[in-house]
Amino acid sequence: MINLKNDYNTVGDKKILEELIKYSDERYVGYGEDTKSKELNSLVNNICNKDVDSYVLAGGTITNVIGLNQMLKYSYEAVITVQSSHINVHETAALEATGHKIIYTPNILGKLDISKIEETYNNFTDNHMAMPKALYLANATELGEVYTLAELREISAICKKLGLYFFIDGARLPQALASAGYSLADIAGLCDMFYLGGTKLGLPYGELLIIVNDELKANFKYLIKNKLGMLAKGFVGAIMFNAFLKDDYYLELANHSISMANIIRDELKDYLIYPNTTNQVFIKLDNNKYNNIKDKVACEIWESHNDYKVIRLVTAFNTKKEDVLEAIKIIKS
Amino acid sequence: MINLKNDYNTVGDKKILEELIKYSDERYVGYGEDTKSKELNSLVNNICNKDVDSYVLAGGTITNVIGLNQMLKYSYEAVITVQSSHINVHETAALEATGHKIIYTPNILGKLDISKIEETYNNFTDNHMAMPKALYLANATELGEVYTLAELREISAICKKLGLYFFIDGARLPQALASAGYSLADIAGLCDMFYLGGTKLGLPYGELLIIVNDELKANFKYLIKNKLGMLAKGFVGAIMFNAFLKDDYYLELANHSISMANIIRDELKDYLIYPNTTNQVFIKLDNNKYNNIKDKVACEIWESHNDYKVIRLVTAFNTKKEDVLEAIKIIKS
Amino acid sequence: MINLKNDYNTVGDKKILEELIKYSDERYVGYGEDTKSKELNSLVNNICNKDVDSYVLAGGTITNVIGLNQMLKYSYEAVITVQSSHINVHETAALEATGHKIIYTPNILGKLDISKIEETYNNFTDNHMAMPKALYLANATELGEVYTLAELREISAICKKLGLYFFIDGARLPQALASAGYSLADIAGLCDMFYLGGTKLGLPYGELLIIVNDELKANFKYLIKNKLGMLAKGFVGAIMFNAFLKDDYYLELANHSISMANIIRDELKDYLIYPNTTNQVFIKLDNNKYNNIKDKVACEIWESHNDYKVIRLVTAFNTKKEDVLEAIKIIKS
Amino acid sequence: MINLKNDYNTVGDKKILEELIKYSDERYVGYGEDTKSKELNSLVNNICNKDVDSYVLAGGTITNVIGLNQMLKYSYEAVITVQSSHINVHETAALEATGHKIIYTPNILGKLDISKIEETYNNFTDNHMAMPKALYLANATELGEVYTLAELREISAICKKLGLYFFIDGARLPQALASAGYSLADIAGLCDMFYLGGTKLGLPYGELLIIVNDELKANFKYLIKNKLGMLAKGFVGAIMFNAFLKDDYYLELANHSISMANIIRDELKDYLIYPNTTNQVFIKLDNNKYNNIKDKVACEIWESHNDYKVIRLVTAFNTKKEDVLEAIKIIKS
Repeated sequence: MINLKNDYNTVGDKKILEELIKYSDERYVGYGEDTKSKELNSLVNNICNKDVDSYVLAGGTITNVIGLNQMLKYSYEAVITVQSSHINVHETAALEATGHKIIYTPNILGKLDISKIEETYNNFTDNHMAMPKALYLANATELGEVYTLAELREISAICKKLGLYFFIDGARLPQALASAGYSLADIAGLCDMFYLGGTKLGLPYGELLIIVNDELKANFKYLIKNKLGMLAKGFVGAIMFNAFLKDDYYLELANHSISMANIIRDELKDYLIYPNTTNQVFIKLDNNKYNNIKDKVACEIWESHNDYKVIRLVTAFNTKKEDVLEAIKIIKS
Repeated sequence: MINLKNDYNTVGDKKILEELIKYSDERYVGYGEDTKSKELNSLVNNICNKDVDSYVLAGGTITNVIGLNQMLKYSYEAVITVQSSHINVHETAALEATGHKIIYTPNILGKLDISKIEETYNNFTDNHMAMPKALYLANATELGEVYTLAELREISAICKKLGLYFFIDGARLPQALASAGYSLADIAGLCDMFYLGGTKLGLPYGELLIIVNDELKANFKYLIKNKLGMLAKGFVGAIMFNAFLKDDYYLELANHSISMANIIRDELKDYLIYPNTTNQVFIKLDNNKYNNIKDKVACEIWESHNDYKVIRLVTAFNTKKEDVLEAIKIIKS
Repeated sequence: MINLKNDYNTVGDKKILEELIKYSDERYVGYGEDTKSKELNSLVNNICNKDVDSYVLAGGTITNVIGLNQMLKYSYEAVITVQSSHINVHETAALEATGHKIIYTPNILGKLDISKIEETYNNFTDNHMAMPKALYLANATELGEVYTLAELREISAICKKLGLYFFIDGARLPQALASAGYSLADIAGLCDMFYLGGTKLGLPYGELLIIVNDELKANFKYLIKNKLGMLAKGFVGAIMFNAFLKDDYYLELANHSISMANIIRDELKDYLIYPNTTNQVFIKLDNNKYNNIKDKVACEIWESHNDYKVIRLVTAFNTKKEDVLEAIKIIKS
Repeated sequence: MINLKNDYNTVGDKKILEELIKYSDERYVGYGEDTKSKELNSLVNNICNKDVDSYVLAGGTITNVIGLNQMLKYSYEAVITVQSSHINVHETAALEATGHKIIYTPNILGKLDISKIEETYNNFTDNHMAMPKALYLANATELGEVYTLAELREISAICKKLGLYFFIDGARLPQALASAGYSLADIAGLCDMFYLGGTKLGLPYGELLIIVNDELKANFKYLIKNKLGMLAKGFVGAIMFNAFLKDDYYLELANHSISMANIIRDELKDYLIYPNTTNQVFIKLDNNKYNNIKDKVACEIWESHNDYKVIRLVTAFNTKKEDVLEAIKIIKS
């Protein structure tokens, strides 16, 4: 069975896993105070061309929640996002569990309607209502879409105007960068905090959270520990992300996944339902066809309608071209 | 420099790391619904000789907090423990951050004064006070001590009598088992929830939480996700713990660390300050001596007094005998 | 200036205030364990024709939050409501601050679209999403509308089917009862918990929370104290609510407020914008007219449009007929 | 039966209750934006001789929790207090329920051991531990003791040195002032936030929270609403506190309660067990004597020992001299 179900279905990239073995005789200081973590931070500073702080956390949800909690101090402070966003739909109310409200606006497919941010903010007028203090979006979005640099600049300017911190969920940021052609330094120049996902691109675990805004840097390790994210062996994540970032290896991995998705998009263009340019492809199959392929191609049902289904096909850093071609053949047949 | 600072100072055991590479071409379902996690759960059931549920979480604090939150539903429900316990002292108020009070009793070195549990419980008499609902202890303790099976039976009986859930923090449970000679099945027979630590015994990350009490099994994955502990690649932890548990490999690793500690205890018996039988050794050094060794042997200062220091030496699953002997020589000289 | 701004703009009904003086030489036990609270509970049992528990809390928000927290144990458990509801819009994220998500559906004016409850519930399919456990609505709604008994029965049946607790915010329940003609006993027969508002009908403070479902009765005072709602002088609220309930005095007060609103509705029917039958009247005034009246009639701007405003006129338990007539004259002129 | 059980056992002082009736025909703006609240704030500014903000909240626990939450932003920030303090023992873990740890030191009777504050603070050394950010004490204490002005100055200086906010629980501050002879202005000069209790001195409900430190003033109404303390009819509390403060009426009420307690202390000096100078008297009675009086004098058992009990007798603002004399006679007989 060909597996196009998601991009986190294997242990990880062998080259990165071998780094773990390579350094396994070394002894390090715990809790991210080690030499590998310092090395990683220097590398991140160089890549971002900025004096930023960086931390490896285990997964996307914990990174979203801890990052946003650094921005939202009092429990009346809230985050604005789109209805379809991960924190609103797919994190089992984890942010609310830390005491904060999510304010959401209708989405245009998976993207923020930029023209609605200010109006949404302005609905919160007095102390009988929550106080918006941050804006969250994912790039790439849940539907694999990428924000243009112009869009991000516009959002960044609106956030500055309204006094909102700007947080970018980068669970699939490498794929967005590979697709859109802008850089980590561009991102670092526009938001207050963001992360670069490893779990969905060849790491066994790990997201690299980057704090850009100096106001948000103080005492962050207190918050990481308090909100359950501190890893005793911080050096493990650092070793992996050093290999991930070095010589733009993460872009190489991301490019591969996108090139595989592009093959699908080209070959199945008649089935495409949502447009995007990253490693997720959404196609519409009538129920008969779906039933014919479902035991041959592992994939996610995104929407289930009376007479058709929307299917998500995801390519990973290590998806093989022969598998992609075979899957296409099965679907077309 | 010889490193006896802690037991989580290397990436991990090579045999276990190689398992990750071995399975890296396989594709798995996410979020712990995979075949490796099911295999692990069967293995744990066999070892515990009970129908238990098992989950791999990233580290000790998150395991303590999520486990206790499954026991403590309403925010007035509290946990009883000893003052020196990890959740009270070294977790940056992570449990309180989820809304629960920690009630603590004085410790006898690092252990619970069993004779005080009932009295402590009885101090909470009415709805103007918190309601104790769980008892937490670590085995081995922070000071490396092990509870005897008789002690655990007594505590278990008191908990049953008082209607308290019994939680055992097992960050160093393998070391306790190796030292005390009782088994995981014994532990599973006495408490409601416990875990078996991997981080401090050769895993790059991971604690194996085991739910014994049927009342505590429902909807636990909701809580894991809600409290930030869900790992997308659940199979990674499962692969590691399968290797860790198979043929009692974890006991082999634990035995090694204890035999190394025993050498230190034998050779430095005149310096010993706290008695215990696991992989931590606490010695008293006058300040002069400490200054002489501190650049040769990496170790933790546990207490700092005017004219002496209490030093903690920790042996790991992969501590070398030659390093132990050299460290002893340095300290004695 | 005639004040039709809201229904909580005076200290309270003199007859009720005089009760406080009448009993001011008596000494009572604290925290709601007194004879007056017991008397109140008997009275409530009689009126509801059921074995219910009753508690006086200070205001609407604290009653909503404590009541819902009794229903929602784990922090992944969520409440379903309409977008416009008080807990979602006008409580400064107080429910989320206790760790729970609010799931909302579009409103039909201020009412729940009953046909959407099940669909909304069914969107929450697995442990990556919140788990709906309660349904909240206000009767009367924010826009003064009243649910019919048939509607409440239908909602109650859906909640039972889906395993949702049913909570009714009754900040203006007396006004709903007076308008719709059903009784407290009808309400008690259909939901799991509800309250009867005093603040908006002549009490200086106080909402009477009534727990119908036996599953929700245990340890409620622990939660009240833990969530900041315990009042030392519980007997004060009990004295007031005894007078409020006795001989249906609360309905008398509610009827007055509605009869005053009905005069406005009759006389200003050409201006009416939202239909309802309780003590709130929503009218549409062009901006010129609004500017002419705004220094003569204190009222709330509900919506502000380019060329008109929606104005809310509220009548209270002690609104004078002459003031109502004068306000009508001013608005018509 | 003579009631000396507590100081919150009657509805309230008639003079204050009559104020409520006096103003009951006036219409006010809601939520503390009314003229009476502004008048109160001016009065408080004059009395404190400082530019402070003031808010009426319903009771002691909610005032402690909301006040401390304004000081403690991140959930790793903790408050230092004494073991016996109200927030630690008698508030059903309400502060922890908002996510903050209470760090406590042993008490000397009910008072803080001032010499231990700095040491306690210094135990919290790094990001694996909570971060102390506030110090809380009650004046008068749970045992009726009063801090001297010299003690408060010393504590204030230590707090400033350590960067701790200083919060004074004043549930019985009027009694402390009446006993110690210093003023509200003295208190306002030494701490960052404090309150003046009404519930225990003749108000049906209400504590007056006063924010001294400018850093703590912003957005406080957001926090009040978010943490369940907002009262729709803010003017009711303002009317009561205006009467309470005017012409030092609160000191008059406090002086009465203390003079009644002094009679007991003089007459029962052989029974006294804890020294203090306010309106609580602690006496030691053997079990026989206790059994003889318990149906004649309502009082609180503070400690229960094998052969004796410690009994608390409390005098209120309206305790009658004849009742005090009669109670003394009963106890002595």
